[in-house]
Amino acid sequence: MSNTIIAGTGMTPFGPHQDRTGRDMFAAAGRAALDDAGLEPEDVDEVFYGNFVGTITENQGHQGPIAAEALGTTAPSRRVESACASSGAAIRDAVRAVRSGDSDVVVAGGMERMSNVGTAGATDALARAADDLHEIRAGITFPAAYALMAQAYFDRFGGSHEDLAHIAVKNHENALVNDHAHFQQAISVDDVIEAPEVAAPLGLYDACPISDGGAALVLTSAEYAAEHDLETTVAITGSGHGGDTMALQDRRELAKTPATRDAAEEAYDDADVGPSDVDLVEVHDCFTIAEVLALEGLGLYSYGEGIGAARRGETCRDGRLPVNLSGGLKAKGHPVGATGAAQLIAVASLLEGSHPRADAVEDATLGVAHNAGGTVASATVHVLEVVA
Amino acid sequence: MSNTIIAGTGMTPFGPHQDRTGRDMFAAAGRAALDDAGLEPEDVDEVFYGNFVGTITENQGHQGPIAAEALGTTAPSRRVESACASSGAAIRDAVRAVRSGDSDVVVAGGMERMSNVGTAGATDALARAADDLHEIRAGITFPAAYALMAQAYFDRFGGSHEDLAHIAVKNHENALVNDHAHFQQAISVDDVIEAPEVAAPLGLYDACPISDGGAALVLTSAEYAAEHDLETTVAITGSGHGGDTMALQDRRELAKTPATRDAAEEAYDDADVGPSDVDLVEVHDCFTIAEVLALEGLGLYSYGEGIGAARRGETCRDGRLPVNLSGGLKAKGHPVGATGAAQLIAVASLLEGSHPRADAVEDATLGVAHNAGGTVASATVHVLEVVA
Repeated sequence: MSNTIIAGTGMTPFGPHQDRTGRDMFAAAGRAALDDAGLEPEDVDEVFYGNFVGTITENQGHQGPIAAEALGTTAPSRRVESACASSGAAIRDAVRAVRSGDSDVVVAGGMERMSNVGTAGATDALARAADDLHEIRAGITFPAAYALMAQAYFDRFGGSHEDLAHIAVKNHENALVNDHAHFQQAISVDDVIEAPEVAAPLGLYDACPISDGGAALVLTSAEYAAEHDLETTVAITGSGHGGDTMALQDRRELAKTPATRDAAEEAYDDADVGPSDVDLVEVHDCFTIAEVLALEGLGLYSYGEGIGAARRGETCRDGRLPVNLSGGLKAKGHPVGATGAAQLIAVASLLEGSHPRADAVEDATLGVAHNAGGTVASATVHVLEVVA
Repeated sequence: MSNTIIAGTGMTPFGPHQDRTGRDMFAAAGRAALDDAGLEPEDVDEVFYGNFVGTITENQGHQGPIAAEALGTTAPSRRVESACASSGAAIRDAVRAVRSGDSDVVVAGGMERMSNVGTAGATDALARAADDLHEIRAGITFPAAYALMAQAYFDRFGGSHEDLAHIAVKNHENALVNDHAHFQQAISVDDVIEAPEVAAPLGLYDACPISDGGAALVLTSAEYAAEHDLETTVAITGSGHGGDTMALQDRRELAKTPATRDAAEEAYDDADVGPSDVDLVEVHDCFTIAEVLALEGLGLYSYGEGIGAARRGETCRDGRLPVNLSGGLKAKGHPVGATGAAQLIAVASLLEGSHPRADAVEDATLGVAHNAGGTVASATVHVLEVVA
């Protein structure tokens, strides 16, 4: 299948932006992406916009046309919603628009604004990523759901909270030089262990923050990029999407994430590569345990082996497979609808050499972005490669 | 571009279904569509699910995996949201999944459940299809927005409430034999004229009802359908999508809908046909004036000529161009997320001869489905043709 060129990228800093509307944040991200690509709003054929809870936090549905207007166009648009994988899914479908030959230039990305409704309001809105009938009404929260997955993992494969703590420490360390990160603050293993418990075994420092922000990519066909002399360093060469039951109660086991496995296999096949070709990866670490589940689902570690990766230093920036050099959701932040797009932006800029942590991966030519929705009832995986 | 086969369709009756959950309604529609296609849940590669306000009315986000489970699969899914054009947009993107070669079999459709929150709750939720910042906070409602469009049309081109009344009368008449319709009840021009005014010039009988329901289509590539001996009578041969400013205040004029025009031109080009090839059409008549705007946007009438079409009988079932033989949103009902899919189902069954109004269009070979979001800030158009 032909490559889809990442012609431009843009994002806002992630963090609390109570004074900025969603349309303002997406305008900043999207216009920066168009500038980066050297394209104008009228060049955009379509907009694929990821957002999860704006219908609640900004009282705004039908956000596609607002996202398009923020870019300066009335090009056709839609919102793609897949909980925390909303912009991963938006990019997935944007790639199809290009591959089908229908569109030359698409903008794909997303935005989330949550801090304006406070932590309780945001937590309540975000709970809608779980199954209302079978989970939310029973009182489950997202930290509790991931705690169940962590407990299941420990029971099946072993591991400790200290293993998880090394993941949080690594991701905070990675974010220290990232001025778009929500947190630029080093933490220690002791900080994580001693933090207030949220849902055993997970504590406060095992969880990502509630962030606001926007992120956008300009994607074009290879033919269009060549004809218009666009920057064509990095392309999306593989795209995959996986699904699972919505409720944890219906899963065969909680210590694995088959949606990630399915998405990864499809993306690798699509790009004609395998896990051993991966030089760096951004994974969906909404909680520390989620990074472990992702690395194993992606086939980068065998089941039961991912838990010690950060502790052993293998996934640190001087390790053999740097993971979440951006800081990940844990430290870069997690404005839900923008997260999947920001992961691709991080991978692309690391491969191009423009990311502040690019020195850790100087010879890298292939990176992977992994975005997950809910308790990984949805997952998207994209393979990015240096192609020029 | 290669055709996308409509291999199966299914829908629930539209109307108040306060005792049915959304997942139950989509299961009924989706499983009927799979049965109609002669396929099993495990044959489904992907699910494209349209829904507008379930995050509010059912407290449920991340509905894609729930929709997939309702079908009996954990295939990858996403929710596509574009207000009242949500399932039109879902079908648009589903067609790309097939055209890109990534998927052989997709289920596209949608569902809406609103009557459980009452008329006030539903009206409040649906308002989110307008611009919160520039319209909703100023007190605009959807009847008021379409009333502004009707007033602008009358000012520019002429016309009267009586012209609009003939549209409502026609669509109610068409629905009399449709046992999936919300209303199977004839009304008169006087009934419409004398009904309580909602927003001048529109009265109660100019508006569609608040309905619950689900609708789904099984789409496959032509190659897959041939290899698996599927029914291949009708295909989607053209797909188009248009956008406009979100808020009415930013439009150049209110008496035309350029998003529909753009979507129609793209769909006709895609199918290599023109307006004169159209034998029948289902258009988005959320209000009577919307049918007029749609017919003109679709190029089926010149600007200013669509207003008298129903009064002159041209768009009635014995006219030269039957419009909304299903009853339209006005009488069939408008469960928002299901509407676009139900329109394609109506067109397909009319072309196949299985629809109760098919006798009105015995020689028809080409039909069009037009779905609109908000005040036509989004529009999708699909061309369906008899291909076998």
